[in-house]
Amino acid sequence: MLSCSVCSLQSEGLERAVAAFRSVSGDEGVSLGEAVREQHGRDESVHRCRPPDVVVFPRCVEEVSALAKICHEHQLPIIPFGTGTGLEGGVGALKGGVCFSLRNMDQVLDLHQEDFDVTVEPGVTRKALNSYLRDTGLWFPVDPGADASLCGMASTSASGTNAVRYGTMRENVLNLEVVLADGTIIHTAGRGRRPRKTSAGYNLTNLFVGSEGTLGILTKATLRLYGIPESMVSAVCSFPSVQAAVDSTVQVLQAGVPIARIEFLDDVMIGACNSFNSLSYPVTPTLFLEFHGSSKSLEEQVSITEEITRDNGGSDFAWAEDEETRAKLWKARHDAWYASLALRPGCKAYSTDVCVPLSRLPQIIVETKEDLIRNNLTGPIAGHVGDGNFHCIMVLDPNDPDEVQRVHEFTERLARRALAMDGTCTGEHGVGLGKRALLREELGPMAMEVMQGLKATLDPKNLMNPGKVL
Amino acid sequence: MLSCSVCSLQSEGLERAVAAFRSVSGDEGVSLGEAVREQHGRDESVHRCRPPDVVVFPRCVEEVSALAKICHEHQLPIIPFGTGTGLEGGVGALKGGVCFSLRNMDQVLDLHQEDFDVTVEPGVTRKALNSYLRDTGLWFPVDPGADASLCGMASTSASGTNAVRYGTMRENVLNLEVVLADGTIIHTAGRGRRPRKTSAGYNLTNLFVGSEGTLGILTKATLRLYGIPESMVSAVCSFPSVQAAVDSTVQVLQAGVPIARIEFLDDVMIGACNSFNSLSYPVTPTLFLEFHGSSKSLEEQVSITEEITRDNGGSDFAWAEDEETRAKLWKARHDAWYASLALRPGCKAYSTDVCVPLSRLPQIIVETKEDLIRNNLTGPIAGHVGDGNFHCIMVLDPNDPDEVQRVHEFTERLARRALAMDGTCTGEHGVGLGKRALLREELGPMAMEVMQGLKATLDPKNLMNPGKVL
Repeated sequence: MLSCSVCSLQSEGLERAVAAFRSVSGDEGVSLGEAVREQHGRDESVHRCRPPDVVVFPRCVEEVSALAKICHEHQLPIIPFGTGTGLEGGVGALKGGVCFSLRNMDQVLDLHQEDFDVTVEPGVTRKALNSYLRDTGLWFPVDPGADASLCGMASTSASGTNAVRYGTMRENVLNLEVVLADGTIIHTAGRGRRPRKTSAGYNLTNLFVGSEGTLGILTKATLRLYGIPESMVSAVCSFPSVQAAVDSTVQVLQAGVPIARIEFLDDVMIGACNSFNSLSYPVTPTLFLEFHGSSKSLEEQVSITEEITRDNGGSDFAWAEDEETRAKLWKARHDAWYASLALRPGCKAYSTDVCVPLSRLPQIIVETKEDLIRNNLTGPIAGHVGDGNFHCIMVLDPNDPDEVQRVHEFTERLARRALAMDGTCTGEHGVGLGKRALLREELGPMAMEVMQGLKATLDPKNLMNPGKVL
Repeated sequence: MLSCSVCSLQSEGLERAVAAFRSVSGDEGVSLGEAVREQHGRDESVHRCRPPDVVVFPRCVEEVSALAKICHEHQLPIIPFGTGTGLEGGVGALKGGVCFSLRNMDQVLDLHQEDFDVTVEPGVTRKALNSYLRDTGLWFPVDPGADASLCGMASTSASGTNAVRYGTMRENVLNLEVVLADGTIIHTAGRGRRPRKTSAGYNLTNLFVGSEGTLGILTKATLRLYGIPESMVSAVCSFPSVQAAVDSTVQVLQAGVPIARIEFLDDVMIGACNSFNSLSYPVTPTLFLEFHGSSKSLEEQVSITEEITRDNGGSDFAWAEDEETRAKLWKARHDAWYASLALRPGCKAYSTDVCVPLSRLPQIIVETKEDLIRNNLTGPIAGHVGDGNFHCIMVLDPNDPDEVQRVHEFTERLARRALAMDGTCTGEHGVGLGKRALLREELGPMAMEVMQGLKATLDPKNLMNPGKVL
């Protein structure tokens, strides 16, 4: 029996799958060790490694389709793989099968500058796209932190720090090329179509956005682009309480300030950032902000925001226009994951993800902090507060089963707290493996039945990323 | 046999359906004449009147569900009806059946000011909602022109003049309560949930938005709201050519001006508006614009826009801050339908609807104007040019079969021209009855098959608004 060279797991279906692939598709593109290393090295979740039996590296949609047809015929599970930066175990091969690594399909296609759109293959990451766009005056703003592939971001309905202004993947995908479980190739908005809006038929694009590889393999995405703002200003402000920080956020939005980023960090997170990046922000609830626009409009945005924060007891309002200071500030925010890990060297991290209506944020954050203390857990909080979305970055010793269990119970309590406040168990990470039971609580049995019906229609043999979402 | 009292059509299923309803649900809420009058009086499309057999006026979701169950059991078609302002024949009862008029469910529910959301029943129109919100500092910006019901707008994925800044219904519906064909009640994002974003499971909300009553009956919509801007400024500018007007639009968007409305009117439309409203705009391609923001930011927005239009040969740039002048300007734009009709008294109008990438607008508009002249047709053009979306308001004599035929052929050519330019046959009116063949051309047979599969899953007896979309 073949076994995984990295984690020494033995897989029942391994020989059968590899043999099936070799017999029908030749050796080319089939790799085991590489796949497993890829998954081990890149999957940032704490979910247990579940390696596939085989990995294929198709180079074009026709190859993806041909390989899917083979899987379909042999009833082999298909697990689409982008960069493996997902957080909810979405790329684990629970039933073995074939991992479709799409990294070799990495071309940026069909940039239309005047139309503010571009089409990318699934191996293109957001940073690669923005590098490509560098001289065009355009950019793609959705930023989940990791340098994820854009089709991977579409598949989990990702968002991140800029969503309050530019929306999530849901609002920014115009069209998708998708290979279905049986190898059929479809274009969700019609081949090559890219109007900025449409009322033509069912919204298939947004059925596949967020479907986490369970309905098909995304092989192309047409995305909306935005003009790079003339100027950007960043700011930091400290608050006496979570309530004061959230009140400021609501008032900034009410005032119509077109804020580009408004990020909350709790006292523990700020402390971690200070230590990790040798900074000296006051260790209190803090907002990191960013404004995009013309120089003149920025002055006004900053001044309105400063006034609002001051009225809410905010202090140490510091703003920065120069690239270097701004970069330093956002590096601190983007390093939150590593700053959290540094709180307990040798530990692993898992980032929770809930989203509630804005007005419920103070209560849920306060209750969650009490919960963390009560259960002796390390979980600094950072959040995209303009959307009501936040994370606890849980730092835990994976070899301490008691702590692992307490983290697990804590995250379930947190999700249920969000559900009790009209919110969702995941604002941007997706359901994957970890939140299937919570999804059922969130939607109720009838909506789940509808989702299961859609899944059964598009993937009657349950081959597409089985065991995820539903 | 019963017959329709307004158009004298006789309906085969009439007696059977009415009898079925009377036997199982009593007389209450069952009406024929009223339904037919409602459809005759309100359906603004040129599609032939297709009255239902029965109309019911449910008062709550439980009644909708109970009535749907009766229809399901007796295999009676279900046609959801909001205000009948749709333009593609979406409420015609092609196979007879039961019209669900939702006008008695007209409550605004659960306004959450701090969270910028509200839930409405399906009888609430956009104007009624904005009246309700008057003292809150909030508004719902999606504006298709007609005072449509908000659930009707959701069902056709409506948009209109403000979409360039605030998005369409797709981006502004957070949750839907839906009654399926068999009477099952679901909440697309889970009961009562209203986070501003979510990655939890398939995006059912946007599967029902735009489904035009073919997948279920919308009985509640939770909508995003926006702060009313501190100030608004409107402007008008005349251009030497369509190209110059569109170039200005692209450059305004590239410059990051957060423009709220940017509406194109061709020379014929401007002429019609001048006559109808006693105005004296130059009879050339024209942009009507609106800016939302703080007084200070407006100054800058207007000044950048004015410079861009001047560089493109725009002239007579006139802007208005006072409510009265602004209202006059937008009344002219909103009266475009009636101004067009007044070009040929006694005629009827049909508004086409296509959407293309911005850069293709000049070519498609120029070719379309040539087509109109060549075929001796009256079709002033107005468009939401920031989205690449425009309409020809076709004014025709319904009793001239040759002209009716020429209009039909023209609209098909226009749609195919949009398809050839990577666009869509409908940007905001929907497919309804009139564009089913075009939809097939737009999406291709495979995507159509997926849509048919979804329809068969959710409505296996094909009772929901049969004969529409697919």
